[in-house]
This record gives sequence, C-alpha cells and structure tokens, in this order.
Amino acid sequence: MFDFKYYTPTKVLFGKNTESKVAELIREFGGTKVLIHYGGGSVVRSGLLSRVTAALDEAGIAYVTLGGAVPNPRLSLVYEGIELCKKEGVDFLLGVGGGSAIDSAKAIGYGVANDGDVWDFYDYKRVATGCLPLGVILTIAATGSEMSDSSVITKEEGLVKRGYSSDYGRPKFAIMNPELTMTLPDYQTACGCTDIMMHTMERYFTQGGNMEITDALAEGLLRTVMRNAVILRDDPRNYEARAEVMWAGSLSHNGLTGCGNDGGDWMTHKLEHELGGLYDVAHGAGLAAVWGSWARYVYKDCLPRFKQFAVNVMGVSDGPDEAVALAGIEALEDFFRSIKMPTNLRELGVEPTEEELVEMAHKCAVGVGGAKGSAKLLDEEAMLQIYRASV
Amino acid sequence: MFDFKYYTPTKVLFGKNTESKVAELIREFGGTKVLIHYGGGSVVRSGLLSRVTAALDEAGIAYVTLGGAVPNPRLSLVYEGIELCKKEGVDFLLGVGGGSAIDSAKAIGYGVANDGDVWDFYDYKRVATGCLPLGVILTIAATGSEMSDSSVITKEEGLVKRGYSSDYGRPKFAIMNPELTMTLPDYQTACGCTDIMMHTMERYFTQGGNMEITDALAEGLLRTVMRNAVILRDDPRNYEARAEVMWAGSLSHNGLTGCGNDGGDWMTHKLEHELGGLYDVAHGAGLAAVWGSWARYVYKDCLPRFKQFAVNVMGVSDGPDEAVALAGIEALEDFFRSIKMPTNLRELGVEPTEEELVEMAHKCAVGVGGAKGSAKLLDEEAMLQIYRASV
Repeated sequence: MFDFKYYTPTKVLFGKNTESKVAELIREFGGTKVLIHYGGGSVVRSGLLSRVTAALDEAGIAYVTLGGAVPNPRLSLVYEGIELCKKEGVDFLLGVGGGSAIDSAKAIGYGVANDGDVWDFYDYKRVATGCLPLGVILTIAATGSEMSDSSVITKEEGLVKRGYSSDYGRPKFAIMNPELTMTLPDYQTACGCTDIMMHTMERYFTQGGNMEITDALAEGLLRTVMRNAVILRDDPRNYEARAEVMWAGSLSHNGLTGCGNDGGDWMTHKLEHELGGLYDVAHGAGLAAVWGSWARYVYKDCLPRFKQFAVNVMGVSDGPDEAVALAGIEALEDFFRSIKMPTNLRELGVEPTEEELVEMAHKCAVGVGGAKGSAKLLDEEAMLQIYRASV
Repeated sequence: MFDFKYYTPTKVLFGKNTESKVAELIREFGGTKVLIHYGGGSVVRSGLLSRVTAALDEAGIAYVTLGGAVPNPRLSLVYEGIELCKKEGVDFLLGVGGGSAIDSAKAIGYGVANDGDVWDFYDYKRVATGCLPLGVILTIAATGSEMSDSSVITKEEGLVKRGYSSDYGRPKFAIMNPELTMTLPDYQTACGCTDIMMHTMERYFTQGGNMEITDALAEGLLRTVMRNAVILRDDPRNYEARAEVMWAGSLSHNGLTGCGNDGGDWMTHKLEHELGGLYDVAHGAGLAAVWGSWARYVYKDCLPRFKQFAVNVMGVSDGPDEAVALAGIEALEDFFRSIKMPTNLRELGVEPTEEELVEMAHKCAVGVGGAKGSAKLLDEEAMLQIYRASV
C-alpha cells in the first residue's frame, strides 16, 4: 500500500428540503456577495433558482447570477464568470446544478483567486494557490464534483477538454436533496450511474497499493449503484434509490475509494475526454462506450484485479483467471446495456473516421504527457488501438 | 432513510514517517504556540515526543507539553491543561497518543474556547460554541477520535464517565503512521479492534433509516477489521494489517458508517461507560464483555438487522431468522474469544456485587436521560438485566 492523503472538508447536508439551508451555509462560510452559477433552464423551470434567490433575499445576502453552463462546460463562460465576479466584488460562488455548473464555478473560483490565464491550470502550466470559496446545490448525481478536488473544462479553440485537481477547489458545502434529481431524463440518470461507477473503477483497476478496506468499500459502492440504477430505470421517482445513487456519487469521487493505491488508472476518462471534446457526447455514455475496449486491451496485465472485480462486484463464479476476468467484463457490459448505455461508439451515436481516431489518440497522448495508465501503461499507439476496437 | 449531515474536515496524512510533517501542518492551520498533550511514557520512550519537539524547534514554533493522559482520561488533568493553555497563550493543541490523549486535548480545547466549567458540556448542561484548533498524531488505532466529533472524559468525583460530541472538536489534521502502533501490547491491539468494530456496530443495529450503501460500507469495514485483527494476533508487526485496522478505526467513527440512519443504538457504549467509570477497565474489552448480553436481550426486536449482520458480516448461512441471528451473535463472540477479548464480566476481570450492578444500571439510566437505544429502547430495569446477564 502507498501512503496517502485524505481530505474531504465539504460539509454535506443530505435530504429533503436541505436547499432551504443555503443562506445559513453561505453565511457560515463567510459569503457576503454571491455569484449563483447554473446551467440550463431546468434549474429555472423547476423553481429551484427562485427558491434560492428568495432565501438569499430574505437573509440579506447580495448576489448576481450567471446561467449557461453546458455539459462539457466551456472556457469562454468561465472567463465571463471571472469578469463578472471581479466587477461585482463577489466573495462566494454557489454552483447550482450538476457537474457542469460546479466544474465551471470551480474554474471561475481559480480565475478570481489567481492572476493570469485560468486555462494555464488546465493546461498543466501552473498550479493554483487558492480558489474563491464555493458551495453547491446538486441536482444531478454523476460527477462527484460536489465533494471532489476536480473540475473539467473544455476550451473551444481546438475542442480541448482538460481536468484540473486541487484541494482549493473542494466545495465548502454541498446541499444534496435527492428529490431535485427526480425529473432527470432516464438517459442522464443512467449516464450519471455510469460516471459514478467509473470514478471508483478508475481507482480500482491498478497495479499497486490496494488496501483491503478500500476494496471492500469500493466493491460495496459499485454493487449498490448497479442495484439502484436498475431500480431507477423502472421507477425514476424512487426516493430511496435516488438517495443511494446520489450519496454513492459523492463517495465515489471524494477520494475514499482510492485510499492507499497508486492513484488509479484514469485512462477510460482520458479516452472519453477526447470523445467529449470532439463530439460533445454525454460523459457517462462516452465512458460506457470505451470501457469494454479498454478493459479487453489491458486485463491480462492486471489480471488479479479484473478477477477480483468479476467475483466480488459482478458475482461471477470462481474459475480460471482469464475466463473469470472476461466474464466480469462481459457482465458489466450487459449491465450497461440493461440501463441503455452504449458499449461502443456506434451505439454512442458517433462514427469517427480513421483520421479522427488518429487525431483523438494523438490529443489524448499529448493530454496525458505521452503515456498513462496503471492497469497497463498506454501510449499513443495503444490508445489508437482501443479507439479502433471501440468503433 | 433519514436526512443526515456529513462533515469530516480532518486532513489525514496516512503512512510511514508522516509525523515529520507535523510542524508544516500546525503552521497550515495557524498554530503559533502549541500545547503538546500526551499520555504515558511510551510516547517518550519511543522517541516520538522528542522527534515532534525537534520538528517544532526547527520550524520555530513555540510549545509547552503536558503528559499524563490515562485511559478513561480524567477531568482534573483537563482542568490543568486549560489553566496551562491560558497561562501560556496557547493557540493550538496537539494530541499525541491514542484516544485518551486526543479526547483529553479536545476537552482542554473546549475549556479554553468557552467560559465556565468545561464539565457542563459533558453533563449536557450547555453546548460549546467553539474549540481551540487541534491536531493529532495517532499511536493507537481504536477510538476514532482522530476524525470524530466525540470525546469521553471521566470525572473523578463519583467516577462519572461521559461523552460530548461537537463538530468544533473535530481535529484539523490527523497524522497516522501505522508503524507507531506496532509496539502496542497484544491486548491493547485487540481492544482497539473491538472498539473500532463497535463504532460501526452501534450505528448498524438500528430500527430505522438504514441505507444500502451505508450497510455495504459498514459490512465491508467489519469484515476487514476481523480479518486483520486475527493477522495482528499472530503477527503484531504486520504493517499492512496495522494500516488496515488504523484506517478502519477512523472511518468507523467519522460518521461514514451511519449516514442515513436514526443515529444508532449506542447502548453497548453506554453500558460500558459505567463499567469504565467504576472499574477503569480497557474500553474495548469492556465493550466485548457486555455486547453479547446486550445482543441477546435486544435481537428479537431488531431481527432483520441481526440476521443481515449474521449473513453479510459473520458469514452465517441463511435459515430461520432467529436461528441465523443467534448464530451471528455466537460467531462474533467466538471471534472476540479468538483475539482474547472477554465475552462477560468475569472474563473481563471484574465481579460486581448485585448492589454495584444496580448502581451501574442507575447511573447508566441517569446518563442517558432515562432510556435509550434504537435496536430496542432500554430503561433502567432493562440495563440491570443486561448487566446481570453479563456477569
């Protein structure tokens, strides 16, 4: 096992009507002028935004609003948010929505608290030395950004999608009311469940440092998400299942399921980032579409972990290592199909040309600095082969 | 499921030689004058204390020291620490040791940050409105105090042992080097494993609000502790097993294994507190000694949970509910015996008279405000019956 740091300072309020505490929490963490950052119209249509602004009005907390965060959130909106915060003297950010609004709010926070171009952080040129304090009202269970140190931003020029991680970006509080996720389209719910699982699986398929307790937590989390994803497929307004998935989403990406290991593999995410940058597909669906090809490419080099996954998570009976490992991969693809997630690019709805596959592999390799992966180290040629196998 | 708050702000550095970061962490959290609070001589003999003071000297951080924290830490030492802090202008506390030193440091922190008698908080008369910031170097995996909101103090007058919980008392950082726990006597290691399990089990045996994901994490944690407790019985210097148990200890009591439920049962702890107050027995051993009697008294009223525990944690085969539940209780008692923990008061080494049993039941009932328990609500008469059955 490796030494590790564990730091999850986010104060979580979980349950019905917890959004009514938003003004109290902003005040607790020192906010006096707030930028409320949200995405599309659902936060407006559902009345959540007006409930939030009413609560701030009542508490006498000043605010400005900035909507428009989209899936694969854009750098141009981040720049706009930074300017707005500086002009208005904003000292606290409130992200209302899913990962897009939260990630975008984190980027705005880095931009306000640090001089220079905020893209430098996402381009691995500098590290942030602070972030404007940030709170969250979560409406989509998926990215785990509500407790994580991560944010992912897409630069429109060249469609470059990059993630940046820093403890400064961890939200001060996260309000999680499972009821707010009930009106999500089924496809987005399934995408969210996939993303949640992948955050744990990226940490699980590693060559080194795995702890028994981390494995036990990870395997329990994965089984819980799968069981409840199927419940939500058939009964989208099931509060208990919404809550199980929502809490799993936070625990899956706050660091808990990676304690002691070598940092994780993360190549499925990196491969998907290029897809998301080029085609603007839903992140969870993109992950599902490439995971099987990635798994078949790497599993022989990480056989004990794939076997353990097959037995402990997918319920495959014991047997010869390779057969068990492959059965586990197939079982997870069956699960993806059962919740209408794609297991290849065609099912995802994109049909890249060979040139586009080559371009994605090249951008992916550049993005990871040449080669990356713990289950198996992947270079540009390996990435291309996985993309080709996923067509 | 119930709404819940989850707040674990403690920054954990876990692994070999992490104590070398102590000065850096104290500075990060604003400490300029430190009270180093520790327990017995082992922290001195092992050289840990002098490594800590050397690190602070090198960093130019001023400090005073106060040793003498004992198991079931005493109120008189807390008062002494409060006076010392006020006299010396201490602005940061560093607990070095196990739960006793940490709990005692938390109480000192409450006493410095609040006017009046600090015992008022433990006597449920007032709530604290702050605590001096606190860091921890952990040397015993047991109480989970390094990440928890709890501290337990014994008032010498009347031997009253009481716990107080407040988010203000959660440590700012916790340094956890499993190597520091390697020289613990086997008995203390086993007591620690028992205490760790009980922190999750107190949250597990409830009538209401249980979440699937919380159960999955709890069950995985319990299985991990049992497996590694046996490894440590035979190989006390096994680093991996020390690490598994140490991390399990923190996760077991930081709130993670109770999310969504009704707050837990906690009667085994309350019953043990009276034993600990009267006889000064080791906390973990005291818990093991009364748990079986508690479990047999309550299991019929909480049968689904006892059955689930038997199957998912103790590996009992499915069958009629009561038989499975009882087999699970027996299996855990067998486990306790396998690591040389007592399963009744005689094995614990105390033989209370009937009058003493009556006195403990009375003090316990007063301590919980009359009656308490989620698996089954216990009044004074029920407490007495459990004490009698545990003789």
